[in-house]
Amino acid sequence: MRFHTRKWVKPEDLNPNKTLFGGTLLAWIDEEAALYSIIQLESPHVVTKYISEINFMSSARQGDIVEIGIEVVKFGKSSLVLKCEVRNKMTHETIITVDNITMVNLDENGKPKPHGKTEIEFVKDRLAKG
Amino acid sequence: MRFHTRKWVKPEDLNPNKTLFGGTLLAWIDEEAALYSIIQLESPHVVTKYISEINFMSSARQGDIVEIGIEVVKFGKSSLVLKCEVRNKMTHETIITVDNITMVNLDENGKPKPHGKTEIEFVKDRLAKG
Amino acid sequence: MRFHTRKWVKPEDLNPNKTLFGGTLLAWIDEEAALYSIIQLESPHVVTKYISEINFMSSARQGDIVEIGIEVVKFGKSSLVLKCEVRNKMTHETIITVDNITMVNLDENGKPKPHGKTEIEFVKDRLAKG
Amino acid sequence: MRFHTRKWVKPEDLNPNKTLFGGTLLAWIDEEAALYSIIQLESPHVVTKYISEINFMSSARQGDIVEIGIEVVKFGKSSLVLKCEVRNKMTHETIITVDNITMVNLDENGKPKPHGKTEIEFVKDRLAKG
Amino acid sequence: MRFHTRKWVKPEDLNPNKTLFGGTLLAWIDEEAALYSIIQLESPHVVTKYISEINFMSSARQGDIVEIGIEVVKFGKSSLVLKCEVRNKMTHETIITVDNITMVNLDENGKPKPHGKTEIEFVKDRLAKG
Amino acid sequence: MRFHTRKWVKPEDLNPNKTLFGGTLLAWIDEEAALYSIIQLESPHVVTKYISEINFMSSARQGDIVEIGIEVVKFGKSSLVLKCEVRNKMTHETIITVDNITMVNLDENGKPKPHGKTEIEFVKDRLAKG
Repeated sequence: MRFHTRKWVKPEDLNPNKTLFGGTLLAWIDEEAALYSIIQLESPHVVTKYISEINFMSSARQGDIVEIGIEVVKFGKSSLVLKCEVRNKMTHETIITVDNITMVNLDENGKPKPHGKTEIEFVKDRLAKG
Repeated sequence: MRFHTRKWVKPEDLNPNKTLFGGTLLAWIDEEAALYSIIQLESPHVVTKYISEINFMSSARQGDIVEIGIEVVKFGKSSLVLKCEVRNKMTHETIITVDNITMVNLDENGKPKPHGKTEIEFVKDRLAKG
Repeated sequence: MRFHTRKWVKPEDLNPNKTLFGGTLLAWIDEEAALYSIIQLESPHVVTKYISEINFMSSARQGDIVEIGIEVVKFGKSSLVLKCEVRNKMTHETIITVDNITMVNLDENGKPKPHGKTEIEFVKDRLAKG
Repeated sequence: MRFHTRKWVKPEDLNPNKTLFGGTLLAWIDEEAALYSIIQLESPHVVTKYISEINFMSSARQGDIVEIGIEVVKFGKSSLVLKCEVRNKMTHETIITVDNITMVNLDENGKPKPHGKTEIEFVKDRLAKG
Repeated sequence: MRFHTRKWVKPEDLNPNKTLFGGTLLAWIDEEAALYSIIQLESPHVVTKYISEINFMSSARQGDIVEIGIEVVKFGKSSLVLKCEVRNKMTHETIITVDNITMVNLDENGKPKPHGKTEIEFVKDRLAKG
Repeated sequence: MRFHTRKWVKPEDLNPNKTLFGGTLLAWIDEEAALYSIIQLESPHVVTKYISEINFMSSARQGDIVEIGIEVVKFGKSSLVLKCEVRNKMTHETIITVDNITMVNLDENGKPKPHGKTEIEFVKDRLAKG
């Protein structure tokens, strides 16, 4: 799994118990899944369709750095299935894992639209092909 | 199911496709589950432990009003299991349902702590008892 | 008065004195009045025209839960007059009361437009009529 | 009246009707009143106690610049009464006027505390006295 | 230099070390430069092109009041060069100075467009001329 | 240069001209520099001391994905000098480059404190050493 986006836990990200607010964490994951899909599918119109169960294994505190990893599970016809892990760079603990985040590629009318992709591409390769 | 909190979908709540950003929606649900639990368990120290699978059935657009409903599924010893539905007041469509959101009551050291509750109480009743 | 929306006072809602920032509270009230009006008037284009005097009677602290109640005072021709109470679910204190929040229904050019409503309707009743 | 703080109306400040969200405007006013008082009373512990009626006379659109003016009405023993005007630098229209915003100086226990000020001072003068 | 906009350092503006987050400060400066330019150039379409080196000389803490000053350095053909100072009203310390913030006036296609201005104008004077 | 953090340009990140707000971009860079330093210096108490000149070469629009890269220029005694590039994943254009962002490691009293590091370490290596 490749970990890209990192977040610095700031006061505005805390719940009143002074740990990372779960809702903020979920929003971070959803954003990361969306942008990963947009890059892979080369399509700007991608939405979250399904998220499998989420286990909160540990948390993070103010000043901690959190790292979000995404990996492709499967390319569907108009969908992309991802898995996600969030870990705490400070404590080396896993905060959350999600086995299945299903993103769907949409056309202009909001209907599922085949994306024509079957494997992960890196921008480097795309440029080489162009 | 009782629907309390309502949200007005504002520009800052949208994803770039101009529908309600999934991450914002998840953050709203997590906050609602937390405050519902705090009221029921009469304890300020409650965290989200588990969220079962989430199906995004429809979305919302700028200016729509979204309503969040919570219902108790089960009182555990130190936990509280909730279910949640979010619906769109404009289109009368269900946006999301979640069957199991497990909240855990913690002590000052962050360890699970029995909450002593076995059924839903309304503030009215509590005052009557006092 | 029916209390719908609830808010969890988070670090980002505090003023530097560590009580609920008055400006955040006013923003919550204004949003609640807007969405209440949009639902009652079945019109998305409603703006705040007037707010009567506001007395800050008590405050709230981080982790408190705040509940916002709205009640109709009067249906005007193109306006709707509401009253509002905000209370602290933790301390059972009233935080603020506002006797008159006047919302106006607008047409596409931003001019007042009769809304044709004379009494409170609940979504249930509307569906029954349809 | 001296106009200090200026705000640029950004997408995040709009209501779904695409005019400046009233709640955001109220939050800006409350912040401005607080910081004006803190400077005048040379006390960091000042809270909003009362806001007289608010008339929304015009609005602002995305990209407009809004200017907030504050003037002292009266020095009380532990209070400071301000008036406020918000105007649109683009259209030269007044957006809102508020005749009485009463701020109260508090001690460490949150009780009103005399501030000992009877007139407006400018930082320049204070330094001269020092 | 004229100091207009003032900010109250709130919990959401802090970094995890509990001083003013540098990124928030930079965002405040950029907004102030933009709105100052929009007023001077009487053009809504102005963007930041260049910022010279930034020295963080001191910081601010929660509850401090920060004041942002802007001064014109030079009117270019389609640009406006500003300098900026941010100071702490509480400690009377300078937080940051920036010698050159270059703003560019753009046409509808995003190309530089002459703005026809050669000196600072105050709104008062403009009205007198009109 | 290694690019970690990615951002999805959302409505709340835009200026009124509908391109990425420069202030938001600067805040993203400052956060990335801070968290990169915290990880490298294994110290939570790091602040931004200096940012060299910033050239805005291109921008980004709603829905674009922006990627932030950081590279170490030099390890000082108590400082760390970084360089930064931000690029647009959609257009493959560079948005901004900054040659020198100087971060300083502080002790509990806010004084510069030697960090003892002389080269980049990866978490993998640290674990191996442990």
